[in-house]
Amino acid sequence: MGAKTKQRSALLIIGNEILSGRTMDKNGGYIAEQMTRHGVPLSEIRVVPDIEDEIVDALNTLRSKYDFVFTTGGIGPTHDDITSASVAKALGLVFGRHEEAYQVLLDYYGPEELTDARATMADMPEGAALIPNPVSGAPGFQVENVFVMAGVPRIMQAMLNHVITKIAPGEPILSNTVGCDLVESVVAQGLGEIQEEYPDVDIGSYPNFRAGKLTVSVVIKGTDEQDIRNATKAVRSHILEMDGQITTESYQVMVD
Amino acid sequence: MGAKTKQRSALLIIGNEILSGRTMDKNGGYIAEQMTRHGVPLSEIRVVPDIEDEIVDALNTLRSKYDFVFTTGGIGPTHDDITSASVAKALGLVFGRHEEAYQVLLDYYGPEELTDARATMADMPEGAALIPNPVSGAPGFQVENVFVMAGVPRIMQAMLNHVITKIAPGEPILSNTVGCDLVESVVAQGLGEIQEEYPDVDIGSYPNFRAGKLTVSVVIKGTDEQDIRNATKAVRSHILEMDGQITTESYQVMVD
Repeated sequence: MGAKTKQRSALLIIGNEILSGRTMDKNGGYIAEQMTRHGVPLSEIRVVPDIEDEIVDALNTLRSKYDFVFTTGGIGPTHDDITSASVAKALGLVFGRHEEAYQVLLDYYGPEELTDARATMADMPEGAALIPNPVSGAPGFQVENVFVMAGVPRIMQAMLNHVITKIAPGEPILSNTVGCDLVESVVAQGLGEIQEEYPDVDIGSYPNFRAGKLTVSVVIKGTDEQDIRNATKAVRSHILEMDGQITTESYQVMVD
Repeated sequence: MGAKTKQRSALLIIGNEILSGRTMDKNGGYIAEQMTRHGVPLSEIRVVPDIEDEIVDALNTLRSKYDFVFTTGGIGPTHDDITSASVAKALGLVFGRHEEAYQVLLDYYGPEELTDARATMADMPEGAALIPNPVSGAPGFQVENVFVMAGVPRIMQAMLNHVITKIAPGEPILSNTVGCDLVESVVAQGLGEIQEEYPDVDIGSYPNFRAGKLTVSVVIKGTDEQDIRNATKAVRSHILEMDGQITTESYQVMVD
C-alpha cells in the first residue's frame, strides 16, 4: 500500500428497533460507502440495544481501537434516547445543558415551542462541537474522535456531509470489478494464486444470483492503479482460461 | 417479564464487501426479524472484515456472552473464505476434511465436478453438525452454540429455516404499534411517564418521514398481553390529549 498511514473508522448503531427487525438499517451501508470513498473505510460495525452499559462498553472498545467512531440513533427527545448521556459516561465527561445547542433549538423552535422534552436534545457531554442538522434542527455532536448522529437516514446523511469535512481524506481506494458467468468454485484456485502474486491488492470474490444462476463478481481493490490493472489482467486471463465469459467490467477511481 | 429465562442471540456478519459499502447487508434485518418472532431475539450484531484475528476475537466474545451466535459469509471456496477455519481456531477445534460434508458435495457435484477448490467447502471444525443447503449444495454447520451460514441471502434464508428448528422457541414477544401525526418531542415526556408506570413493557418511539413531515410511531412490546393493552390505552390517551390523531394501530402476537 502507499506510504500514508491508513486511518480507520467504525460505526456503532444504537437501537432496539434494528435488533428486533422492526426497522431495516439503512445507515450502515450508506456510511460504509461514503467512508470508503473518503479513504477512511469502516473496519467494524456494531449494533447494540438502548442499554447504557452496552453502549458504553462498545463505544470504549471502538474509540480506542479505531481513529474515528460514528454513532447513529438515540439522540431524540424521548426516554429511550440515551445515546448522548451514554457517550458522556463512556468518555468520563460531565453531561448537561449545552448552551450553543440550546440556542440552536431556541432559534429553530422559538421560545414557545421549545418544550422541556425538546430542550433535552441540548443535553450533551461538556465541550461537544455541534454537528448541524439542516433537516429537523436538533444537532448532533463530536467529542474527541466520536461523532454522534441521528438515526433517521435523511437527517444522518445531512449530518455526515458535515462530519466528512472534519476528517482528512485518506488515500483513495481504487477498485475494479470483473463479473463472469462462472461459479465461484471454478475460479477459486486461480484467484488464490493471483492474490499471492499481487499481495498489495485485495482480491475478493462475491457470488450472486442472476437469472436464477450462481455467477461471480471478482473485486480487485487497492491504492496503486498499476497494481490493480495488472491483477485485473491476470483475473481476466484466468476467467477466459476456465472457459468463462466476462459479463461486466468497470474501472473507477472510487469503490463502486 | 415472564418466568422463563430469556435466551439471547447475536449475529456476526463476516465480509469486507459489507464494510466497504459494495454490498448492502440484507441478512441482519432478516435474521433479526426471524429470531424476534422465534422469541430468541438478537441482542447484538457485529460486522467484521475477512481477517482471522478479528473473526476469532468477535466470535469468542459473542459466544460467551449470548446463548446462540449466528455467522453469515465467508464459507465459499475461495481464498478469502476463512470463516470455517476461523471458527475452528476460536473454539480450539481441529480443522480438516469433514467426511459427511464431503459426501454431500460429492452427491451434489458428482466426482468429476468436485474440484479441489469446491472440496475445501467440506473443511470444517471437528464434530460439526451440518446445516443443509438446498440451494447450492455446500452445507453450513453448527459447533457448540455457533451456527455458521452462507452470506448469499437466498442460501442463508434456507439455512436459517433449519437452524431455527434446533433452537427452542422463547416466549413470544408481543407488540403493538401506535402511529400518530405528532412529532416525537411532543409525545416524549408523556411516554417517559407511561414507561415508568409499566416497567414490564418496553416503549419505544420512532420518528419517520411521511409525506415530508416528521411523525412518530410508538411501539409497545412485552410478553404479557394485558400489560401491553393497558400501556397502549395510556399511549392512545396521551396522544389524543396532546391534540394528536392516531394514524395507524396494529395488534399482533409477533413483532411487526
